[in-house]
Amino acid sequence: MATILTLAGDGIGPEIMTQAIDVLKAINDKFSLDLTLESGLIGGVAIDATGEPLPDETLARARAADAVLLGAVGGPKWDAIERSKRPERGLLKIRGELGLFANLRVAKLYSQLANASSIKPEIISGLDLLIVRELTGGIYFGEPRGIRTLENGEQQGYNTMVYSTSEIQRIGKVAFELAKTRAQAAGTAAKVCSVDKANVLEVTELWKQTMIEMQQADYSDVALSHMYADNACMQLIKDPKQFDVMVTGNMFGDILSDEAAMLTGSIGMLPSASLDESGKGMYEPCHGSAPDIAGQDKANPLATILSVAMMLRYTFKQEEAAQAIEQAVSDVLDDGLRTLDILDSSEAGLKQVGCKEMGQAVLAKL
Amino acid sequence: MATILTLAGDGIGPEIMTQAIDVLKAINDKFSLDLTLESGLIGGVAIDATGEPLPDETLARARAADAVLLGAVGGPKWDAIERSKRPERGLLKIRGELGLFANLRVAKLYSQLANASSIKPEIISGLDLLIVRELTGGIYFGEPRGIRTLENGEQQGYNTMVYSTSEIQRIGKVAFELAKTRAQAAGTAAKVCSVDKANVLEVTELWKQTMIEMQQADYSDVALSHMYADNACMQLIKDPKQFDVMVTGNMFGDILSDEAAMLTGSIGMLPSASLDESGKGMYEPCHGSAPDIAGQDKANPLATILSVAMMLRYTFKQEEAAQAIEQAVSDVLDDGLRTLDILDSSEAGLKQVGCKEMGQAVLAKL
Ligand SMILES: CC(C)[C@H](C(=O)O)[C@@H](O)C(=O)O
Ligand SMILES: CC(C)[C@H](C(=O)O)[C@@H](O)C(=O)O
Repeated sequence: MATILTLAGDGIGPEIMTQAIDVLKAINDKFSLDLTLESGLIGGVAIDATGEPLPDETLARARAADAVLLGAVGGPKWDAIERSKRPERGLLKIRGELGLFANLRVAKLYSQLANASSIKPEIISGLDLLIVRELTGGIYFGEPRGIRTLENGEQQGYNTMVYSTSEIQRIGKVAFELAKTRAQAAGTAAKVCSVDKANVLEVTELWKQTMIEMQQADYSDVALSHMYADNACMQLIKDPKQFDVMVTGNMFGDILSDEAAMLTGSIGMLPSASLDESGKGMYEPCHGSAPDIAGQDKANPLATILSVAMMLRYTFKQEEAAQAIEQAVSDVLDDGLRTLDILDSSEAGLKQVGCKEMGQAVLAKL
Repeated sequence: MATILTLAGDGIGPEIMTQAIDVLKAINDKFSLDLTLESGLIGGVAIDATGEPLPDETLARARAADAVLLGAVGGPKWDAIERSKRPERGLLKIRGELGLFANLRVAKLYSQLANASSIKPEIISGLDLLIVRELTGGIYFGEPRGIRTLENGEQQGYNTMVYSTSEIQRIGKVAFELAKTRAQAAGTAAKVCSVDKANVLEVTELWKQTMIEMQQADYSDVALSHMYADNACMQLIKDPKQFDVMVTGNMFGDILSDEAAMLTGSIGMLPSASLDESGKGMYEPCHGSAPDIAGQDKANPLATILSVAMMLRYTFKQEEAAQAIEQAVSDVLDDGLRTLDILDSSEAGLKQVGCKEMGQAVLAKL
């Protein structure tokens, strides 16, 4: 028996989570997985209920669970709250406290949605790219940090970007291993592109050097390349299919994974996994809480549903169950069902549906 | 009389500089500008000659000059050199020493080149976006920085991202003022989007707060919006025309300006200006030294030639001369001349030309 903690969060979080839970229950029955579901509070709803974006109780239950499924956090309602208590802090804290150092974000083009992108179809057709982002270090967590008053009376803000060799090795290993798995599945050669700014930042010089040493020592079967972050941001637009696995630090990963997601034109479709050293993980859609459409049954639940598939694959090693969900999602797209975010009004034969109808259609396919 | 120091640098630097100098001389005669040209060493060629990427003599002459025109620096030949002596260090040092805190990068779509982009034409047609990047602060220059050995024997790399209120105000002022000038010229309302990661980094929380205060105190006629860097990176792909002036720190500016340039599909066309508080500046193409095509007469000289136009506009206040150059560039594009980087092989009636032929064609139009 295994336990999953669901944290719906704010904005569209509850709606998309309801659909994902339905799918999770169905797959649990179908594959006799013996999963137990619990729910808890994080983000703005947790602030409203307890004053804290990540209450101790939620953290304790997340530690006890085998996996966490997260909706989304944040919204204008909590923007004026003091920095240390904002919804985003809850998200950063749970990542840090659970040691979820490996964030996997897939930018995959669904062929049914090729027209939704602002990129020309030939540039992105068949795109399937994995970004491995370090998630518990770098400038997101580095100390010292803060805002201080200088002697001349003006203020100064400061943050510290820091990585040690072992932190780099740990995330590098995830990237190299996944590149091998992916290459095996696809029948291609394994390759990793490490993104840094080693021409300017010493911390990323150590990053680059460590990646080179790992490749030479343990991964001579994986082709390793290096790219500066500014160039990577350009190359993703120019020719994203040149990449298979990209690995980078917390901040560059934040930026590049959003860029890669947007290339597909379907950020409402993209799931993510955040894993610790034992493979325990938190799974969440790449998109945010979209407060502007919350509660209107307009949200796209597919990224959260696909996050369930990632959970089954990475934490529970249930590849068959994972693929069943992915196939069901592909099937509803084939049927022409579209939530607003992925609707191409110039295409014939599509049917606009709400969050609930989309979720139930996936369920019906299972 | 005014003096311009030209620093050709490495890779394609000398070729593109030769063409830009021809244009500069012609415009000097035509508009009786009384400009004197000198040349100096920076980057790899300076390392080869003196051991330093920015020799003292070059720095002294740059200080004495009224403007600097730079080609490009760096190349694989100098990659193995110790960090503090690499070509890029020369570039960072001259920016810092001359106090060139305001980097202006224009991402403009040349309608003649609309097909060269990987973005769909309707998304970028008419794009003309200015990125104002802070260039002498932030994590590029912050201390402490380095790589140290920890007690447990492993290494740790660290850099510091730091901004004070006065640094933010200084670059904010440039952005607000330019937004007003641009709006006046275009007959539109002035707007600035400030890019930060205030939900995570304290230093950018101060950035955001300072921008808000400036707008309230002095720029109530400019609409100010804020965007997180990851979202900005997405929005640039989704709908770049929502922006007019973007202002951000050194590192986010490095990444976003390259992204914006790539949207146009013509990074070989884009100039930049780096200005100090008095308007003195260094002007350079946005692209790099392209060692792979160096010395083969394949490079596109237009970004460097357009950098001359920016110099005439911002440092010498010669708007008419600046426009004459810009018009000449547009004319040669109308004539169908294309260097390899901007050649669309599916388009009829184009003529592929080398660096020299392109430069001389612009000259002929003047
Ligand atoms: C909400 C925010 C703190 C978060 C981040 O910057 O990591 C988000 O952008 C993400 O990528 O998950
Ligand atoms: C060459 C490098 C140091 C430089 C930078 O990072 O600023 C370049 O990328 C640029 O944008 O001018």
